[in-house]
Amino acid sequence: MKNKRTMMLPGPTDVPRQALLSSAQKMIGHRTKDCEELIDEVTDGLKYVFQTEHDVLILTCSGTGGLEASIANTLSQGDKVLALCTGAFGERYATIAERYGVEVERINFEWGTPVDVSKVEEQLKETTQQEFKAILMTHNETSTGVINHPQSLGKLAQKYNLLLLVDAVSSLGGIELKVDEWRADVVVTSSQKALMSPPGLALVSVSPRALEAAEDSDLPKFYWDFRRAKKFLVERPNQTPSTPAITNLKALRYALREIKSEGLENVFKRHKIITMAFRRAMQELGLELLVEEKVASKTVTAVKLPSEIKFEILKQRLLEEYNVYITGSKGELKGKVFRVGHMGNVSRNDILSTISALELVLKDEGLDIELGSGIKIAQQVFYEEESN
Amino acid sequence: MKNKRTMMLPGPTDVPRQALLSSAQKMIGHRTKDCEELIDEVTDGLKYVFQTEHDVLILTCSGTGGLEASIANTLSQGDKVLALCTGAFGERYATIAERYGVEVERINFEWGTPVDVSKVEEQLKETTQQEFKAILMTHNETSTGVINHPQSLGKLAQKYNLLLLVDAVSSLGGIELKVDEWRADVVVTSSQKALMSPPGLALVSVSPRALEAAEDSDLPKFYWDFRRAKKFLVERPNQTPSTPAITNLKALRYALREIKSEGLENVFKRHKIITMAFRRAMQELGLELLVEEKVASKTVTAVKLPSEIKFEILKQRLLEEYNVYITGSKGELKGKVFRVGHMGNVSRNDILSTISALELVLKDEGLDIELGSGIKIAQQVFYEEESN
Repeated sequence: MKNKRTMMLPGPTDVPRQALLSSAQKMIGHRTKDCEELIDEVTDGLKYVFQTEHDVLILTCSGTGGLEASIANTLSQGDKVLALCTGAFGERYATIAERYGVEVERINFEWGTPVDVSKVEEQLKETTQQEFKAILMTHNETSTGVINHPQSLGKLAQKYNLLLLVDAVSSLGGIELKVDEWRADVVVTSSQKALMSPPGLALVSVSPRALEAAEDSDLPKFYWDFRRAKKFLVERPNQTPSTPAITNLKALRYALREIKSEGLENVFKRHKIITMAFRRAMQELGLELLVEEKVASKTVTAVKLPSEIKFEILKQRLLEEYNVYITGSKGELKGKVFRVGHMGNVSRNDILSTISALELVLKDEGLDIELGSGIKIAQQVFYEEESN
Repeated sequence: MKNKRTMMLPGPTDVPRQALLSSAQKMIGHRTKDCEELIDEVTDGLKYVFQTEHDVLILTCSGTGGLEASIANTLSQGDKVLALCTGAFGERYATIAERYGVEVERINFEWGTPVDVSKVEEQLKETTQQEFKAILMTHNETSTGVINHPQSLGKLAQKYNLLLLVDAVSSLGGIELKVDEWRADVVVTSSQKALMSPPGLALVSVSPRALEAAEDSDLPKFYWDFRRAKKFLVERPNQTPSTPAITNLKALRYALREIKSEGLENVFKRHKIITMAFRRAMQELGLELLVEEKVASKTVTAVKLPSEIKFEILKQRLLEEYNVYITGSKGELKGKVFRVGHMGNVSRNDILSTISALELVLKDEGLDIELGSGIKIAQQVFYEEESN
């Protein structure tokens, strides 16, 4: 029954069958009209999802590679950046910058809480002269399930004339992110999260300000070079400097068509409803959520592990007995929460399967669970939301 | 009839149908037993093809990314390297090193000719003290179809205590390359050439000397970091630091099984016979080959374009009328040669289709061609080689 597995990971996520099959067509050359049409359509679809009029560059790498590219292209040796860390992925972004010889000032927020924008402004006010070049932020902190709002940080970046670099790896396409309107200069996502495609592609929007910064950047790069990528995308046009992951692009094209056909607003609404249904159900079962409602991610939810339950046993039983795939967390949350990803190709039925499996396993592990009680609450959420 | 196209490009090459279909199975997580088994089997297959006992690292990127990783991991700011340039890809390797602040001394060889090892030794002798840190070389110069021999350069590298970094993007798996025996420290290839898989993966073998050099390297990297990749491959084990291109790995697993089942020696022999058949046929048709027999690549052949023939017309007619896909070259060879890739999933029938299409189009374009004359010579090559 492996082919019936319900993938509730915060990435890689379930890929629609037709997306996979469309990626399995006969190979094409990368300097051909076929490939140019492919990249043209993917680029258009990405602009729609990124809500941007600017360029979206296609890099063959994981999301981490895209983050590295955002650093290597916009900054220079000795530049100072403000890194807003709300979990493992904020920390990773800061680390990448440090590896490149960028001076990183971190503001750490407690895991499970979001960026406190007033603290960021305090820090910026304290610097009497123009000290920072950029703010690094995580839109959706995957390790905790907290959402940070680029909108207010975009305003701050504008006020203090900084670049805003955004890790939107686990959010873009699942949670609203108005790249241009909110003034996000570089936004990085990857194919295997809310874009419901196979891993292998990072997608990176670049504002004119970011491209201007790229002109001055002295950090070493060749493969990551935004200017080269832009040249091939715009002048060739619709090519990439190196051979791109063509089969992955074909799957992504299919997925973007699906998103367009459902409508971005509806996709966001679906993510919201599924999140609400899951959160309410967990509370009904007496479980505690890591993150408060108003800053809760719509793509991944962390639930505190009841003290009686061992994470590895929970994960194994859900998988082996009910074919539901969940995961744990990292760093200081390791062993303390379980996380359920609900992004991309995720349906109301998937979240019901997950709630049901949790009810059954947790009851059998000794918790006082009334079977069906979480499910019923989730159904009520669906019912009320549909009637709205 | 696009699905019947005969792909005679020097990459991306034709991918076996079953490899594509195996990549289209349900998505799996990257921190799962399924994925670990996948990486374990791919790694074993790669060691077989690389003929190495050392680690082969899997990077999600194109071949160019793999080359960049070889520089970023083994060298430091201000190190000096000797770059052996026999065409566009040798030049690219040198350029990547320069971008990283490495001092590059080029030895340029005429396009269409191979590295002259005595000139390399001359250059090394001239340097009175230990000046160079590494030699950069291209095993198979795709832009010209010349093969350079790592064996003699490995000996030189050993004598002068240098690292040997090898671009084997368009050769590995099609042309013999005994990585350990010939003392190649880093060998980079990519999935979409002789390994007949979709683009998206670079495969990089690293000798203990290369890993030792990585300990001292001060060039910035995070995504490219060999030490991190090795840690995840060996200690987890069989994982990658970031989410790898899982579907591409599945296709590569299938392709590596096919190579193992055919036997590496037979794969090399097939490439040799097809090359010989193609070269003899072209000569029979009165066309001139760019590269001499004894240094001719076994994965790609460049043929000089007769003065009466325009490249774009030849390419278009072959494609539109006979479904055969060939390409031109770059830099100083642009418009002067056409190139036929014959690597990976290439059969005797594919090369016959190519020869036939060339006969028909060239005759129709006004060359004095006897239909079937090239084909007959190719058949004779098959016949004689099979009887041996």
